Amino acid sequence: MSKFGRRDDKDLMGLLVEASTASLADANIGGKDIDAIYVSSMLSGELSHQTATASALADELSLLPAAADRIENGPASGGSAVKNAYAAVASGLFDTVLVTGGEKMRHVAGATVTDLLATMTHPTAEYMQGATLPSLAAMFTRLYMERYGVEPRHLALVAIKNHRNALKNPYAHIHREITLEGIYSKPEAELNNPVVSDPLRLYYSCPITDGAASIVITSAENARKFSDAPVAIAGIGQATDTLAVHQREDPTVLRAVQISSQRAFDMAKSKPKEIDVAELHDAFEILEIAESEDAGFFEKGTAHKAVEKGVTALDGDLPINPSGGLKARGHPVGATGVAQIVELTWQLRGDAGGRQVSGAEQGYSCNFGGFGNNVLSFVLKRGD
Amino acid sequence: MSKFGRRDDKDLMGLLVEASTASLADANIGGKDIDAIYVSSMLSGELSHQTATASALADELSLLPAAADRIENGPASGGSAVKNAYAAVASGLFDTVLVTGGEKMRHVAGATVTDLLATMTHPTAEYMQGATLPSLAAMFTRLYMERYGVEPRHLALVAIKNHRNALKNPYAHIHREITLEGIYSKPEAELNNPVVSDPLRLYYSCPITDGAASIVITSAENARKFSDAPVAIAGIGQATDTLAVHQREDPTVLRAVQISSQRAFDMAKSKPKEIDVAELHDAFEILEIAESEDAGFFEKGTAHKAVEKGVTALDGDLPINPSGGLKARGHPVGATGVAQIVELTWQLRGDAGGRQVSGAEQGYSCNFGGFGNNVLSFVLKRGD
Repeated sequence: MSKFGRRDDKDLMGLLVEASTASLADANIGGKDIDAIYVSSMLSGELSHQTATASALADELSLLPAAADRIENGPASGGSAVKNAYAAVASGLFDTVLVTGGEKMRHVAGATVTDLLATMTHPTAEYMQGATLPSLAAMFTRLYMERYGVEPRHLALVAIKNHRNALKNPYAHIHREITLEGIYSKPEAELNNPVVSDPLRLYYSCPITDGAASIVITSAENARKFSDAPVAIAGIGQATDTLAVHQREDPTVLRAVQISSQRAFDMAKSKPKEIDVAELHDAFEILEIAESEDAGFFEKGTAHKAVEKGVTALDGDLPINPSGGLKARGHPVGATGVAQIVELTWQLRGDAGGRQVSGAEQGYSCNFGGFGNNVLSFVLKRGD
Repeated sequence: MSKFGRRDDKDLMGLLVEASTASLADANIGGKDIDAIYVSSMLSGELSHQTATASALADELSLLPAAADRIENGPASGGSAVKNAYAAVASGLFDTVLVTGGEKMRHVAGATVTDLLATMTHPTAEYMQGATLPSLAAMFTRLYMERYGVEPRHLALVAIKNHRNALKNPYAHIHREITLEGIYSKPEAELNNPVVSDPLRLYYSCPITDGAASIVITSAENARKFSDAPVAIAGIGQATDTLAVHQREDPTVLRAVQISSQRAFDMAKSKPKEIDVAELHDAFEILEIAESEDAGFFEKGTAHKAVEKGVTALDGDLPINPSGGLKARGHPVGATGVAQIVELTWQLRGDAGGRQVSGAEQGYSCNFGGFGNNVLSFVLKRGD
């Protein structure tokens, strides 16, 4: 991974190179072994005025004539790139593939970023009415509060947990402990934690982040050549849902999370209760709660209680977002799906330092695109 | 395919739907059989303010919860999408996949399009110096003229051939016969065929086009369920080259065309001389000449003579661009690589109407990204 954060020191290509070279070094692999490159980036054209970014990265890394494609799938771009790289290897087209996701977002105004991110919503039913991702998330949060008794306090607890985890992640964007008093219960919390889109507040939403993340995928047979501790992509699931959120029978149910996770578990011959560590897509803190239910870890409407009991804390029964999640590791959009796989890989190898989930053998990640209309789920297993 | 042209009647999504529904109907396939969708579009965010376009198409076509990804690889986006769809099926992740490429480009100023297309060039060595695709193609043409004796007359002959072929393609953008007198030899030709970037003139370059193209890919076993005349993707090759054209040892040699075509021929166990029909990427007419050499159909520096002799005409030994090519079918950037596969499929099935190459059994396509820095080659064979 590159360091996530405000990275005025590098452009998008510089971030992609930083993560890619780290990944190649970690994989103990030379450029000649890379047959293909996948780059995931949602907004490289819009924010960096550069297209066909994967071709450029192939040249920058001296990996010519490796094949190179850019995948754009909104916030699920990273997961889509990992899926296509997996298929490229599994099909026999390529032996060893580099996947690097990245986004450079902080050099433009926040309102510009919010507008460009909203281009993933329904163009007439949502975008043209002024809907943005924060406003959709706010309505989703409100429904969740009314239906299941979630309170803003629970959103604060998720954020506090993820900020705490990120303190132990040197690559995280935000290294700052936050407290329930500071963002929720003390009188000054209203000022510290201003409204973004009621009932969403600043600390219930992820920041805008620059950064990149990278992995190397090869066949199971090949993996042993490069690593003593390979990690297997055991299951992949992907599913779409209606683009317009209001068209869903029950907007609080994330069907694409349900279907994609079920497919990933089936392919991996695994179950939610076998998972030791999970990376979920908390672009908004309510999403960590909802995804943890629809992926099958908790009954619908109960995850906020699990958060309260510490079940999802680093020392709980199911640690969620040990990396700090999108909330505190940050959310460079095209990088996120890849960064989740990086974190799970470190966890399954026992390389996660102070945030290590002890004895982790299986990990799950959920990369949530659009407002839940395109979701990828992965199950990773520690190699034997 | 959708009709290519100036399509003020539909937005990008409308064009993608038009091509997709035609493709599903042609494949005799219902929505329930589609497991995944690939959309190729270079500039959907920049020109249509829409991202994650594949998710939107999945919903629009009622194909939920099919997986959906958008591939952006400059002008090679279509070829990249076909490659990834092939890998998705060959890997066993999905059984049957829809690939739809499209671009909506004519609703903005030509200068805006030229600028956005230039974002695929080297950001500092080319783009910031004012290089555009036409100016790079002009320099390439000049080198070709000096090195191999190509004259503007040869470029005109390629354009005339492709315009003539397009007259027989109902989906083509341009239905107008042009003559050597009108665009080259008569005094008024200077006015009819103005300079774009010396020595390139209007008729030596492709137009800006709206349109979409779509195919269905499934396993060889499955194909017989849907079609009596399936066509096999027998070979795929992809290769990258230096992003900056001036860094190439010999800028007139298209290394990525050479390597990608060799790989496609090797995979297909075929050779250039076995090819009956070819679709080449004549974004500029000089490229049809150069690609036909580097793909192995003609000796380097001789293809312009073959054009002169009519070898590449519809009734020649190797018909090139029976569809009209990018010059006259048009070049909706993300659609082109898919449209080439559509044309070859029609040719190999014997469904190409007045432009049918009689007895075609093997076809080749070259989808040329950047200024030759990312190229995909395909060999297609008629099913038994």
